[in-house]
Amino acid sequence: MSERVTGFRFAGVYAGIKANGALDLGLLCADRPVVAAGLFTTNRVRAAPVTISERRLRTGLCQAILVNSGNANACTGRQGREAALSLTQAVASALRVSRGLVVPASTGVIGAQLPRETIERAIPSLVSDLSNAGAERFARAIMTTDRAPKMARAEVKIGRTVCKVLGIAKGAGMIHPNMATTLAFVTTDAALSHAGLSYMLRRAAEATFNRATVDGDTSTNDSIYALASGAATTREISRGTAAGRRLAGALTEVLESLAKQIVADGEGAEHLVRIEVRGARTDADAVQIARTIAGSQLVKTAIFGCDPNWGRILAAAGRSGVRFNPDHVSMAIADVPIFQHGAPVMQAKTEAKAAIVMKRPEYTIALKVGRGRGIGHYWTCDLGHEYVRINADYRT
Amino acid sequence: MSERVTGFRFAGVYAGIKANGALDLGLLCADRPVVAAGLFTTNRVRAAPVTISERRLRTGLCQAILVNSGNANACTGRQGREAALSLTQAVASALRVSRGLVVPASTGVIGAQLPRETIERAIPSLVSDLSNAGAERFARAIMTTDRAPKMARAEVKIGRTVCKVLGIAKGAGMIHPNMATTLAFVTTDAALSHAGLSYMLRRAAEATFNRATVDGDTSTNDSIYALASGAATTREISRGTAAGRRLAGALTEVLESLAKQIVADGEGAEHLVRIEVRGARTDADAVQIARTIAGSQLVKTAIFGCDPNWGRILAAAGRSGVRFNPDHVSMAIADVPIFQHGAPVMQAKTEAKAAIVMKRPEYTIALKVGRGRGIGHYWTCDLGHEYVRINADYRT
Repeated sequence: MSERVTGFRFAGVYAGIKANGALDLGLLCADRPVVAAGLFTTNRVRAAPVTISERRLRTGLCQAILVNSGNANACTGRQGREAALSLTQAVASALRVSRGLVVPASTGVIGAQLPRETIERAIPSLVSDLSNAGAERFARAIMTTDRAPKMARAEVKIGRTVCKVLGIAKGAGMIHPNMATTLAFVTTDAALSHAGLSYMLRRAAEATFNRATVDGDTSTNDSIYALASGAATTREISRGTAAGRRLAGALTEVLESLAKQIVADGEGAEHLVRIEVRGARTDADAVQIARTIAGSQLVKTAIFGCDPNWGRILAAAGRSGVRFNPDHVSMAIADVPIFQHGAPVMQAKTEAKAAIVMKRPEYTIALKVGRGRGIGHYWTCDLGHEYVRINADYRT
Repeated sequence: MSERVTGFRFAGVYAGIKANGALDLGLLCADRPVVAAGLFTTNRVRAAPVTISERRLRTGLCQAILVNSGNANACTGRQGREAALSLTQAVASALRVSRGLVVPASTGVIGAQLPRETIERAIPSLVSDLSNAGAERFARAIMTTDRAPKMARAEVKIGRTVCKVLGIAKGAGMIHPNMATTLAFVTTDAALSHAGLSYMLRRAAEATFNRATVDGDTSTNDSIYALASGAATTREISRGTAAGRRLAGALTEVLESLAKQIVADGEGAEHLVRIEVRGARTDADAVQIARTIAGSQLVKTAIFGCDPNWGRILAAAGRSGVRFNPDHVSMAIADVPIFQHGAPVMQAKTEAKAAIVMKRPEYTIALKVGRGRGIGHYWTCDLGHEYVRINADYRT
């Protein structure tokens, strides 16, 4: 499966924002204005590019996204807003498209002004780097402390046409000296209405990005962009149809892969763990229990230590705010039953076995909290020394 | 000021619950049945001693509290409940008081059965250890990974009588191999009604214990007990009077000191930090912002690294759910202004100065988020390598 999607080109160059010489400026460009939707951080403190992107995407159309790493352009006031606006203007001129069709995204250090001239100088080389095969360079240009670029693809056959979905994201790595930012970009050559794409994106993100945590800190810059070129099909795919559901499935699959890659690449993380809850009264209750367990520092340090410390998991569930009867709880770690019907499975062997499976890079902690039909899950990772090291480093 | 309160005796012995030979069994005993109130964990998963204590304290009277460390008696089912009941019965017999006047409290490893016979054998020596001067031994007997015993006293003169308040607590240290548990015991020789004592305890805890976090994980065993012997005064102090307000002040002062000691002794903590928010619409809004900042892993690792990373503090405020205008925010770290009216105080000198004051063992981070009258605070500590080391250790 290729990393190309008909109708889109990508670029990634080194502009000089980062001190270490790594790629730091990316451009995603559609051949013509395409249907676009976005989801943005719920944080009250929002970076300049977030507010600009949100406003511009209200038209439902977009042609290009300019992304830089190494600087979040957050808490930068009027100067930051003007820098983002003038840079999208420069890109629009270079691409000969309307300024309103270009949106900005940033990730990196907060509170420092964007090096506007440095970026402006790089725009010609950025535009000439654009290529249908440039997705990986783009993925590299948006990295901060990510250990690897993050991409995911899916294909879905609709009638005789194969539609592609390509997703690119950066992880919740904490850039020295700064804060987590997740940016994700999804392109597809399927034809969709703005309403259809928005709906599918919201649903897919809710089931994937909104079920993932590294440290519980929502960033000022989190953004997911989705663009649909329609180059593969002329007939618009409606969300209510079988084709729509299959495309939505492909979109969810791509976002799920990206979300997992982001958590697995959480600062210093060595384990990707799925917290799976069933038997709750409602799905919302199940997700709330899973979210509380996934966010617990005590659970995350136990995962780091490969310690089947079920007491911490149960205690986190107990403080989730959801009513359940502790006497009806069962729990398994990577299929090793550790707690059944409110009582520990009292076998030293069992705990030893669980400690061994917890050394795996990826496993599931499954809880049954009652006899209800509610199910839900959350992705989390371990909290270890490397997390502390990365985040405690003094900013110099 | 002495550690004695008229009408109360304390004991602390080594029963053999802990492997390391440290004191592990404490007894607090009033000379006669006294007015008592309690506050218990909001966790749905509650240890056996919590449910028993809560039920027995409904009478508003109590004479003795049996506390063990080294075992939480949580998730231990019927056997755990029976062990706690039979041990309070044994203490009641030894003290020749009614069983309903003795309440149990436990802290330590979760899911292991209480070594009932081991504890029972120690009860005679425990009872004979009771002394008006035994508060420190009691304080030592309830420690888990605490670095030091935690006590606080206050005196308040009411008319010609001096009333004493003595508080003893254990910290949110994570016992190897287990979970945080805060237990606190407050005794006073003032005369109070059950309703008056309950009210004062609830109010005082709300302003102190409920404004403190180490890692956000509410335990299955958290309990605060308050006992009033009335030995110093025969006239009951009403909460609506000047005397009542002064006594409530003394109680709050004692709990505030204990809460600060607990946070300062959080696992591996090197800094005790007060997050102070003003200018919010309401006090509840201010507390919510302070709570979110205090609980942020990114803020806590920055505190550990002595890094004046105001972006993380602002971003945590932004995800608190409280509406405020980021352009109206000002922030100071230990009186060093770092952010004013929505913009960083752009002086390398200022940040360097802030980094120096952040090396102090105790300081305040103050935020003004608007022009409202709402104020609130929260106590937190740093998240460092020692926290990870303590909590990731495999349980063997």
